[in-house]
Amino acid sequence: MIKAGIFGATGYTGLELVKILSRHPSVEIGFVTSEMYAGHSLSAVYPLAPDLTLTDSESSDLLTVDVIFTCLPHSAAAPIALKALNAGLRVVDLSADFRLRNAGSYSLWYGVQHPAPHLLSEAVYGLTEFARAELVDASLVANPGCFPTSVLLPLQPLLVAKAIDAGTVIADSKSGVSGAGRSPKQNLLFAEVSNNFSPYKIGRVHRHVPEIEQAMGWWSDDPPDLVFSPHLLPTQRGILSTIYVPLKDELDDESVRALYTNAYDEEPFVDVLDQGKLATLAHVNYTNQCCIGLTLAGQILVITAAIDNLVKGAAGQAVQNLNVMFGVEETSGLL
Amino acid sequence: MIKAGIFGATGYTGLELVKILSRHPSVEIGFVTSEMYAGHSLSAVYPLAPDLTLTDSESSDLLTVDVIFTCLPHSAAAPIALKALNAGLRVVDLSADFRLRNAGSYSLWYGVQHPAPHLLSEAVYGLTEFARAELVDASLVANPGCFPTSVLLPLQPLLVAKAIDAGTVIADSKSGVSGAGRSPKQNLLFAEVSNNFSPYKIGRVHRHVPEIEQAMGWWSDDPPDLVFSPHLLPTQRGILSTIYVPLKDELDDESVRALYTNAYDEEPFVDVLDQGKLATLAHVNYTNQCCIGLTLAGQILVITAAIDNLVKGAAGQAVQNLNVMFGVEETSGLL
Amino acid sequence: MIKAGIFGATGYTGLELVKILSRHPSVEIGFVTSEMYAGHSLSAVYPLAPDLTLTDSESSDLLTVDVIFTCLPHSAAAPIALKALNAGLRVVDLSADFRLRNAGSYSLWYGVQHPAPHLLSEAVYGLTEFARAELVDASLVANPGCFPTSVLLPLQPLLVAKAIDAGTVIADSKSGVSGAGRSPKQNLLFAEVSNNFSPYKIGRVHRHVPEIEQAMGWWSDDPPDLVFSPHLLPTQRGILSTIYVPLKDELDDESVRALYTNAYDEEPFVDVLDQGKLATLAHVNYTNQCCIGLTLAGQILVITAAIDNLVKGAAGQAVQNLNVMFGVEETSGLL
Amino acid sequence: MIKAGIFGATGYTGLELVKILSRHPSVEIGFVTSEMYAGHSLSAVYPLAPDLTLTDSESSDLLTVDVIFTCLPHSAAAPIALKALNAGLRVVDLSADFRLRNAGSYSLWYGVQHPAPHLLSEAVYGLTEFARAELVDASLVANPGCFPTSVLLPLQPLLVAKAIDAGTVIADSKSGVSGAGRSPKQNLLFAEVSNNFSPYKIGRVHRHVPEIEQAMGWWSDDPPDLVFSPHLLPTQRGILSTIYVPLKDELDDESVRALYTNAYDEEPFVDVLDQGKLATLAHVNYTNQCCIGLTLAGQILVITAAIDNLVKGAAGQAVQNLNVMFGVEETSGLL
Repeated sequence: MIKAGIFGATGYTGLELVKILSRHPSVEIGFVTSEMYAGHSLSAVYPLAPDLTLTDSESSDLLTVDVIFTCLPHSAAAPIALKALNAGLRVVDLSADFRLRNAGSYSLWYGVQHPAPHLLSEAVYGLTEFARAELVDASLVANPGCFPTSVLLPLQPLLVAKAIDAGTVIADSKSGVSGAGRSPKQNLLFAEVSNNFSPYKIGRVHRHVPEIEQAMGWWSDDPPDLVFSPHLLPTQRGILSTIYVPLKDELDDESVRALYTNAYDEEPFVDVLDQGKLATLAHVNYTNQCCIGLTLAGQILVITAAIDNLVKGAAGQAVQNLNVMFGVEETSGLL
Repeated sequence: MIKAGIFGATGYTGLELVKILSRHPSVEIGFVTSEMYAGHSLSAVYPLAPDLTLTDSESSDLLTVDVIFTCLPHSAAAPIALKALNAGLRVVDLSADFRLRNAGSYSLWYGVQHPAPHLLSEAVYGLTEFARAELVDASLVANPGCFPTSVLLPLQPLLVAKAIDAGTVIADSKSGVSGAGRSPKQNLLFAEVSNNFSPYKIGRVHRHVPEIEQAMGWWSDDPPDLVFSPHLLPTQRGILSTIYVPLKDELDDESVRALYTNAYDEEPFVDVLDQGKLATLAHVNYTNQCCIGLTLAGQILVITAAIDNLVKGAAGQAVQNLNVMFGVEETSGLL
Repeated sequence: MIKAGIFGATGYTGLELVKILSRHPSVEIGFVTSEMYAGHSLSAVYPLAPDLTLTDSESSDLLTVDVIFTCLPHSAAAPIALKALNAGLRVVDLSADFRLRNAGSYSLWYGVQHPAPHLLSEAVYGLTEFARAELVDASLVANPGCFPTSVLLPLQPLLVAKAIDAGTVIADSKSGVSGAGRSPKQNLLFAEVSNNFSPYKIGRVHRHVPEIEQAMGWWSDDPPDLVFSPHLLPTQRGILSTIYVPLKDELDDESVRALYTNAYDEEPFVDVLDQGKLATLAHVNYTNQCCIGLTLAGQILVITAAIDNLVKGAAGQAVQNLNVMFGVEETSGLL
Repeated sequence: MIKAGIFGATGYTGLELVKILSRHPSVEIGFVTSEMYAGHSLSAVYPLAPDLTLTDSESSDLLTVDVIFTCLPHSAAAPIALKALNAGLRVVDLSADFRLRNAGSYSLWYGVQHPAPHLLSEAVYGLTEFARAELVDASLVANPGCFPTSVLLPLQPLLVAKAIDAGTVIADSKSGVSGAGRSPKQNLLFAEVSNNFSPYKIGRVHRHVPEIEQAMGWWSDDPPDLVFSPHLLPTQRGILSTIYVPLKDELDDESVRALYTNAYDEEPFVDVLDQGKLATLAHVNYTNQCCIGLTLAGQILVITAAIDNLVKGAAGQAVQNLNVMFGVEETSGLL
């Protein structure tokens, strides 16, 4: 059995992770932390959660586990990751702390000095489908952001095939509110979100822009520009990204589809829909799937890509990474 | 023109009041206050609100208005009401500060000493339909709570007719979330309220119990016991109270209906539905109506009563009271 | 392996059943039927459903399975059940066809002659917690209605203990819209249900009244009257029943609680909440649990009881019954 | 007083129109039709509607009114419009029958021969802000589609200024469900729409594509290509279109903003938001406003444009057109 500790178990991501791990046949949960609810049971915070006693971070005993998951705000995760690595543990970080490989970029986008810049070079960016070789021996995994997961999985086959024409890729993304966390904020109140739909941080100002562009740069010498427009949906969960890609002239329906078939036919968690079908939240919610629809409009490829932001966009992908890291069946606990 | 000042204009009730008053043909808004947003325009807080500059309470000039509305938390309203009364203004208080006539009861239920107990005896309980005579000369009006409005309007005709049998009246009430205010709280987040439905403070522990029982005592020497069960609905607004009343044996469908016809046939804001019809939120939302359906099951009268909690349950009734106080058409600004 | 056929797999209940059975370690799905979608895959109807080919009822081969589930409209289920019983199969009927033991009562409430009245006497009413002995050998199980499940589980301990005083039990029930099925009706459209909340068939006119009263009669020689008020919630799933029970004078908090502890302490699917806690949809949705909160207000016991209408209120309880019928672990496939 | 008849008053658009006209100081409603509910009051169909008796189309007396509004399915509206024009009335058609000026295009996109092709040349496309001169004497007005209104108002200033660079304009539009009408369809059920978000007819296949491109052609000799992606939001009403426009190099924030200020500063129903602000449904729902936010990302202008699909996208704009046609204040009944 793999023994796992979870830092920050009472946020939406932490809870989702606890639920997945508590059903995982090869994992045992060693401890769950919460500064606010230390001493209480997790089931007192969420009616349907397992009955695990929460401890504060300080009291959690790293030596009782093999791996930790950090579901913490950025810059709070890195110091704990460092401590765990020093204790010989492996770390899957669900915060943004190790996603950008450049400490300068991190401080530019997150507004603080990176707490442990020397670790950046060893962190593996855990978009599982494209990180398996590195994950096997990884000590530190940066779990991708939710929006980046929904944008990068559908773009990768195009980028590596040099199928994208000069110009701009536009990702118009819509997310349910759980992506914004569980801390009380006025703009997340039911009375504000219900009956509303609102864009935010559109253009090139959201923190997921550099994360997406960094990965595009790995797959292409000449990556396209990105315009990224997140919107807040009146749903609890789910992301749908509608992505507009200018294709090179020589590509047509069939050749585009072949790129995706080659990339994803064997992938258990990526579903490429048949011609004429479009991805929706109903395809993916409560699952670890990324569902991709392809529609060609002239030479613009309109991709609809859906994930559950809390599963494939966070806790599910973290467990998928864990499975690869520890050599258990990749789908374990996730079907 | 009646000049009105509004204390606490940025909560849901305050905003609703501003919207109604800004369309009212006989009212001019003199000032709107907000401690948090002082100096900003109300339209910066709510996209659709009128462009009025918010001031803090201290800076508002009482002498420029005839009447103030206090949309403030309990115990914050009374001191301002006192100051306004001393300045010769009339006051419609939408907080709970003047609803209970007994200072001891107030401190028991609200957990603080009453800030101005000597004013309690002169406050008129503004359930408009039954307070018109007193409202004409009232200086201080206690605007009823939202749940009490939805329960008292349907109970009054039964109480004055001594139609209720010994036993217990049960009010099973369901309210949209705007009734809980606009301060960020975790239990009011979209991700918590959506897909959920939850009772709270059921039995005899909600602060609206003594308010309802007080009014029942005015209308009956021997009022029934009350069990009151509020529930939180995943809607922005609206209250539906399903009320169960044991009727005396001699009453039947026809005689019950006659009680309501007599009471409400001429009332512009109370609609008694035809036999077989039930009240729903769709009957009342965004209006000042109270809609009442009557269903007899044996000798249990099942009343369905619906109001918009922000209109007839708060700001609308406050304006209805204002209209009576100042001798303008009672429906003015409310149709 | 138990081989199961499902009649009516494309409604919400049928789909939920398919999902549960496809994860059940001791069950194999033999066939799934749909008149409308025969020839298509179930996954074409629901993105997340298993890839099973739908057949029409006529083409399904009863001889390939051990048990059938009928998720069909009332009066359509009975003829198929009869055919299956004649073929030596066992039947779990999720329609209303075998819930009422009296054919006259059936025709009164459902407006048609019963299609197979001679089977009524052998049908077991499958409220699993109180039917285990009979289920073991049952050929025909009438799966209880969703509302009755939410009302009967909390009432049973009071009824058998003769704890209810003379008078009326009131069940004020609220259900998500999936309970009304998947056939397109105007009153179930998103634009009608969203922002609304509406009572329907209140008093003693809903078809679940005789079903609830029948079971109350099994447990008590002198059962109380019932007033039952269903309401439509703007949620996909979940039922919360708030039940008002007049208790005999000698009962208090402690003795009431003891009745429930005795009845349900060992039950895997009934959770009695601690003093002061109230049941909500968040306690039960997507689970087979019935969650019960107890609040004493004077001598009125206010019970809050929550279930997922599609799971414990339909497909989950059907599988729970199956498990008992076939002697596998009762919680199998349901945790 | 202008006397108006409404054909098709029980759909969502028809109802919205009745609500607006019944408050309009210069309009009197002559008749309201419904084939399904003829003989009933409109208030029996919608609790909050005025008490007007519905007639069938045949029984409505055209000679009693000055103008008719046709809120009917495409190809059902044109014959009635023809009859009304022949009777000397003026017509505002809210169907799609007179939006496309080319009968061949109509039959291509709507799959039927146009019922009255000779009228196409005289129909005025009623995007009010750009049709005033023609509206004054118009007999027949084609009220624009909801999506086209949300896309064309923000594109017009760019097109007439030749500000758009070669390439493709992308309109990623999201609409509440009332846009799909009130006829019961499975995909519009609450249980299907809630918690979901789904694209449909994306690329160049939605019927609003030729309507948008036709108007772009009026304003530009060399209009850009259009890719149009509608999505279904889990809200009752509201459209947000996020529009991506490649701008010519010489344009910057200031010069773009100047184009909009010039176009819309005096317009009562078009609000151009301040720099940094984004349009949301909360800016426009229940109003006749079109709210436009402008964000420059490199040389891609990201426009967020919001309208209420039932008001500015349908009934409100129809009344705005009426006001211009009959020479009353353009904002009459609409503020």
